[in-house]
Order: sequence, then structure tokens, then C-alpha cells
Amino acid sequence: MILRQLFDHETYTYLIADEQFGEALFIDPVLERMPCYRRLLVELGFNLKYALDTHVHADHVTALGTLRDEFGCETLVDQHAGVECASRALQGGEELKMGSLVFTALYTPGHTSDSICIHLLDGGEDYLFTGDTLFIRGTGRTDFQNGDAGALYDSIQRLLCSYPESTWVYPGHDYKGWTISTLGEEKANNPRLQVADKEEFIALMEVLDLPSPKQMDVAVSANRACGKIEPNPY
Amino acid sequence: MILRQLFDHETYTYLIADEQFGEALFIDPVLERMPCYRRLLVELGFNLKYALDTHVHADHVTALGTLRDEFGCETLVDQHAGVECASRALQGGEELKMGSLVFTALYTPGHTSDSICIHLLDGGEDYLFTGDTLFIRGTGRTDFQNGDAGALYDSIQRLLCSYPESTWVYPGHDYKGWTISTLGEEKANNPRLQVADKEEFIALMEVLDLPSPKQMDVAVSANRACGKIEPNPY
Repeated sequence: MILRQLFDHETYTYLIADEQFGEALFIDPVLERMPCYRRLLVELGFNLKYALDTHVHADHVTALGTLRDEFGCETLVDQHAGVECASRALQGGEELKMGSLVFTALYTPGHTSDSICIHLLDGGEDYLFTGDTLFIRGTGRTDFQNGDAGALYDSIQRLLCSYPESTWVYPGHDYKGWTISTLGEEKANNPRLQVADKEEFIALMEVLDLPSPKQMDVAVSANRACGKIEPNPY
Repeated sequence: MILRQLFDHETYTYLIADEQFGEALFIDPVLERMPCYRRLLVELGFNLKYALDTHVHADHVTALGTLRDEFGCETLVDQHAGVECASRALQGGEELKMGSLVFTALYTPGHTSDSICIHLLDGGEDYLFTGDTLFIRGTGRTDFQNGDAGALYDSIQRLLCSYPESTWVYPGHDYKGWTISTLGEEKANNPRLQVADKEEFIALMEVLDLPSPKQMDVAVSANRACGKIEPNPY
């Protein structure tokens, strides 16, 4: 397996490939970084089989539509995303096969109602690509796009935390300069995982009072159109 | 081994630790990121044994002096760096032992006359922390601090490229959103490794005409003082 973490400011994109079969998948690709993705795919010689978003993003525009146009990949989002242009709407627990690799889409609502995490087991190691559900020493916010703090608590505590402590955590963002973690490290050190119960977590999330994401007005509608932004006619 | 790639804008810092012995080393720590380093060391429970700079940086201020003050670590730079406050001046080929890990400081002049790369072999895998000598699809510049394009060519082609193609390349910076590579990937795809000979490389470097690094006036003198910037008396 080839795994590359790529960044666009504080947003992470992942390229995962099966070297033997020459097939690759992007998780959360960013439209502005298309030149990087083109170059990597050509230089490493991979066919792009899938491109998926862990949710409809509010802070950047997705490259899903452009990747499908250029590379003929399937574009995948959760069934609750309302992205009609996607090739396929994923259901919680659905498996994606790519060469010898098997990815599982875990339905993890909370940050948004269409949030998924991707699990992969390879070479005896578990990997979780956690999108905006679980960050390193933090979690996604729950104050827009049908966010639900109680649902986020359940998604993290019941579903993600059921994986081994050695599981690698690859988040969708980091704002502190960190790149990876493990579930064990997060269970021990993530302040939002130290709460006594769901009620305490909900109370904690309710008082965050965060500013709106920078590109929210543009990004959400563009991402519902697979990132294919129509030129302004005026 | 624990290996964590940390970022400060486009600069990478590495924390490498031997879990069993509880000892850790920082490569190229950035003064502004001290809160992150403190937190990581405490949460993961490591004693900081070494902090080293791959060269006297011109684009950020080092955390070496502050890390030594707070954690009692040895601070290490190349013998050509002229950093008199460092605990030890490294010679090319010198080994650093930390628990069961053995690091080798490779003298790789070219970007500057005090540039080193760090080699580590662990679990059958080679790692090169290449500082500003070799980037992903690029190299460091050679137009200041005794930079020498011919020396950089030799450092990369004769020394770094003698390691296996599977060697992980962990650079000191990335400006395109990439995080890691391998020597094989760089040999095949790095434009500056595709030149016919040293003369062509020198000619290529001579016409780059790059702007000065953002913090050059402040950073070089501060880094010669281990990043311990005296308050301005006026």
C-alpha cells in the first residue's frame, strides 16, 4: 500500500494506492490542488478508481467532479449528503474494494449529518481516516449542516473507539501543526474524549461559539455540485 | 520507534522517539511551535535527549536553546555552523545513539556549508531527514550562506543516492502540499535529479533568481545564538 498525506493549508487529503494493482483512491481532494494530484498520479503511474468526500465540506471546494471528468473515477459520498451528481451514495458499513485493499465507510454523523470515516486494515495495521469527526486533540464542530453533538459523541465513543488503540488516526484537518495520531493517544489526551458522559460533551460543544468557516457560502453549494462551479453569467 | 512529522506553515519538524527507552529527538524545531512540543513530550511521556538543526536556518528561528533550557537536552549542529552555544558540533559520519536507535549525521554541504542530513535504519526501513538538501521534487537553493551548487550536486548524487530506492525522504520544507517521498521516487521524478551532469545542475541553479527568505535578517543571527533572541534594549 502507498499512503500519502497531502495538505492544503490546514486541510488534509489522502492518496491511497495498491501498488500491485496500480489503483488509487483520493479522500477529501481539494479543487485548488488539482495540479498536485495530476502530477502524483502520472508520476506514480496509478489509475484513479475512487474519489470520496468524508462529508460536504464548508471550508474548501471539492475536486471530486474534476477528478471524475479527467480520470474517469467513481465519486462517492454518504447517502445523506444530497450530492446528486456523485456516482454512488454510500451506506454505513459499505465496503469499497480496490486491488487487494478493502475500505469500509463508517457512518459517523455529528459534525454533519452526512459524515463518514473510512477504515482500512493493511499489513496488520488499522487506519482510520476520520474527516472532521475526530481531530488530533479535538473534534469537528457541530453547529451547522445538521450538526449534532450527541450524535458526534456516539460516533466517536461507540464506533471509532471500538477499534484497537494502535489504530492510526489520519484527520481531515489540523490547526496546530500535527499530522497523525493513534486512537490510544486520542483516548488518553484528547480533551473532548475526557468528558464523563454524553451530556457533558453536548454542554462543551454548545459553548464553543466559533466563527463561520471562511468559504462556507461558496463551498457548500459548490460541493453539492461535486465542486463543478458554473461561471457567473453576469 | 515513534516518528511524528510536524508542520509550521511550509516547514517540517520531526519528533523521533524510542518508545521502549522513553527518549526523543527533535530535528529542526521551530521556536514559535514550543507549545506544541511541550504538549507532545508531556502527553507521550518522553525525555528529550537531543535537539538538532540540519543547518543554520534563514527562514525561521530555531527552538534549540529553549528546548535545552526547558528539557536539558543536548543541542547539536554541524561543526561548520559557527553556533558556539550548541552543546556539540557534529562531524560528518558521526553517530548519535538514543535507546536502540542509531542516527548518522551525513555531511551534505551545498544548500549551505553547514548542511547535514540524518540517516536512520529502523525495522528494516531506511529514513533520510534531508533538511534543505533534498526536497520532494526539488532541492534547497544555493545562493546564500556559502551555498555551492556543485557541492549540493555531489551531496545528493554521491551520498544521499547511495541509499536504497525504498528509503523514505522526509524533507525540511514543502511548498506544494506534499509530505513524504522515497529516494526512488525522487530519482525518477525530481527535475533537479534529471540533469546530465554537475555542470548542467550548476547552470540550472544559477538562473533561479529567488527572492530572499522572509526572515533572513532576523533568523540567521538568532539561530547562531541557538534561537535565544535577546530583548531589544531600546
